[in-house]
Amino acid sequence: MKQETRRQQANREAYERLASARPVLRDIRPARDVVPGMGSDLILTSGPLLAWRDYTGGQRQALIGGALFEGLAADAEEAEAKFASGAIRIGACQDHDCIGSVAGIYTASMPVFVIENSSFGNRAFSNMYEGQARKRLNYGSYDADVKARLDYINNAVAPVLGEAVRASGGIELAPIIKRALHMGDELHSRNTAASLLFAVALFPALLELPLALRGEVQRVTALLVEDNYFFLRLSMGAAKASAAAMAGIPHASILSTMGLNCRSFGIQVAGLDGWIEGDLPDPEAKLFEGHSKDEISWLGGESVITETIGLGGLAQAAAFPLFSYQGGEPLDMIARTEKMYAITVGEHPHYRIPVLKYRGVPTAIDIFKVVETGVRPFLDIGIAGKGGVQIGAGVVQAPGQCFEAALARYNAQYGTA
Amino acid sequence: MKQETRRQQANREAYERLASARPVLRDIRPARDVVPGMGSDLILTSGPLLAWRDYTGGQRQALIGGALFEGLAADAEEAEAKFASGAIRIGACQDHDCIGSVAGIYTASMPVFVIENSSFGNRAFSNMYEGQARKRLNYGSYDADVKARLDYINNAVAPVLGEAVRASGGIELAPIIKRALHMGDELHSRNTAASLLFAVALFPALLELPLALRGEVQRVTALLVEDNYFFLRLSMGAAKASAAAMAGIPHASILSTMGLNCRSFGIQVAGLDGWIEGDLPDPEAKLFEGHSKDEISWLGGESVITETIGLGGLAQAAAFPLFSYQGGEPLDMIARTEKMYAITVGEHPHYRIPVLKYRGVPTAIDIFKVVETGVRPFLDIGIAGKGGVQIGAGVVQAPGQCFEAALARYNAQYGTA
Repeated sequence: MKQETRRQQANREAYERLASARPVLRDIRPARDVVPGMGSDLILTSGPLLAWRDYTGGQRQALIGGALFEGLAADAEEAEAKFASGAIRIGACQDHDCIGSVAGIYTASMPVFVIENSSFGNRAFSNMYEGQARKRLNYGSYDADVKARLDYINNAVAPVLGEAVRASGGIELAPIIKRALHMGDELHSRNTAASLLFAVALFPALLELPLALRGEVQRVTALLVEDNYFFLRLSMGAAKASAAAMAGIPHASILSTMGLNCRSFGIQVAGLDGWIEGDLPDPEAKLFEGHSKDEISWLGGESVITETIGLGGLAQAAAFPLFSYQGGEPLDMIARTEKMYAITVGEHPHYRIPVLKYRGVPTAIDIFKVVETGVRPFLDIGIAGKGGVQIGAGVVQAPGQCFEAALARYNAQYGTA
Repeated sequence: MKQETRRQQANREAYERLASARPVLRDIRPARDVVPGMGSDLILTSGPLLAWRDYTGGQRQALIGGALFEGLAADAEEAEAKFASGAIRIGACQDHDCIGSVAGIYTASMPVFVIENSSFGNRAFSNMYEGQARKRLNYGSYDADVKARLDYINNAVAPVLGEAVRASGGIELAPIIKRALHMGDELHSRNTAASLLFAVALFPALLELPLALRGEVQRVTALLVEDNYFFLRLSMGAAKASAAAMAGIPHASILSTMGLNCRSFGIQVAGLDGWIEGDLPDPEAKLFEGHSKDEISWLGGESVITETIGLGGLAQAAAFPLFSYQGGEPLDMIARTEKMYAITVGEHPHYRIPVLKYRGVPTAIDIFKVVETGVRPFLDIGIAGKGGVQIGAGVVQAPGQCFEAALARYNAQYGTA
């Protein structure tokens, strides 16, 4: 019998940590109270950290919007000056165990889901979905409407939901993800079933809230179930809490996160430190009516953490309903998932896909396999336009450059043997 | 342009009635208060009506159980004597606008869902699921446990749910069916998503119920969402209310219902009166572990009303999760649904299947097409064993005999031209 190499051993350990992760929603609290290293002068944003001058387009606008929302500046000019002087600091979401959607803006007052990986004790944080409006802070827009929705989340939604979550004793997220995969979700571009399952899991606690909150409970419940994307932030937080448990395993060549800023696509690998960056992806997108490809704008995004653990683009075969959103051929979704088994070291024991006879999703992406096969992970992403709105959705393949760079760095660190 | 025949015109009318049906859950009341012709000495059961002496096996046992549950007899012997003498009367569910699951026992005290087809004003009734216990009245079992569950439905579940349904102003069922088809349900053997969607639709009303009911509300809410079959009775009731609007269209050769008793498989046709009966189906079933084919027992069943309107076996392509329950090959489910377009006159405008690029389910089964093509409707059914329990589940094709008999009767009544 062939002996396992140290890399294979390490990758098995990484896979097992991913497979045994147990993400639990414990609380909802303002970022300043729970996020490590958060400060009132700090704004977090998606992807590898850049210098202020290098943030462009929608991600720059979103940072400015975050500063205005947090009251750190009276207007855009003041915000820009303060970013430039360092009076307002910028941080990378994932350096603070947060995970950012699109521009991924976190300010100190924003409520975050506190998600504990109860198998390993680590925590991750995710802030809340802004709602279905096309103009959102995380797409680089900030105006009175955007502010009003963010205020509503801070002052009404989060306190009521937080109360219910604490009263519930914690909501296990893996069983919700497991069931949602049987109900047409891949937990990135589609979270419809998961949002319903989450609402239902929270019902008993919502029913017990004080009568004085009744009106607010009705409004918040409506938001949970009307909004098919509500669960996305929980799926991202669960994925981050799960994947983070793999970080720091020497010799492991498994992807531990992915993320974009406005300039690059970055990955992290369990056995290596820090980001490895490369070119942005080339999107094959279905744009909403009235939009064209030259409007596409990159403003960051870390929702690809879902793909990192085998959901999203890796689990497309679970989500035929995405046909209407992404276009293409439904049966291609099966082919895409099947292709992903070539670059992963395992199948998830709990997250399974009905049309594949309940085969586990392809899990634990090995950078060696990606480079050797030339097969790159599929990503289900939303597409932002220059005007600060979502203009489409599509499937992209992660760009190959950063995988090659990661392999080179791996070989430099551990040797090519 | 070829002129439409009178049959084609009539079938178009039938299809349009089916396509425009709007089933709404209006109330939950004891059968005696709302079911037409219901009496305290009357017990309803599935399928074409038989004489007492012809009810055998589980269906006979279920009728006896119904008599005991309703207090119409002190023991089985007394019940048998009273059935024989006519002191306890037997009726066919569908003669009373009810729809029966398996043996389909309705007694006067049992609560029923009151479902109005608000496009046509007709109503249908469906009683409530007994729960996941393998011994159930409708599988021919009656003992203290079965009684306790039926009592709990009568005395706790129905009053609380009824209160919420009335307070809600009515729950539209078509939007729930529509969404559930995007979430892995075909609304016969799988109702998981629909049960969640129903719970969520009812939640605002449940929140407003008096505090004194709070404990009961918690228990009932748990039952709604833990029980993946809760919605089946609503899907059956919605299908019955929808299909019944087709009855009595002269010249229409569209199936308006199907149903079994312990001896025969029967159908009704929109343009013809009464049942047309034939042989029982031959099941291709996946039996639960420890059971064999010789245990299979027929004890009636009208859940095939779901297939009558294009759900269940006709919509298998929506429900890959059934693979684990029914066996077979997932992609065969697509082929089965595709085959059904050969025997239907239309596609449903609202009930659509993601993997078929949101094509509408095959709707309005034409007996002419069934006989001409030899393609018979697929039915997703539960399989009962002789011991009064469910022993499996499977896909059967409706037997051809009654379709040929119906065609002969149609030609006798309307001529073959």
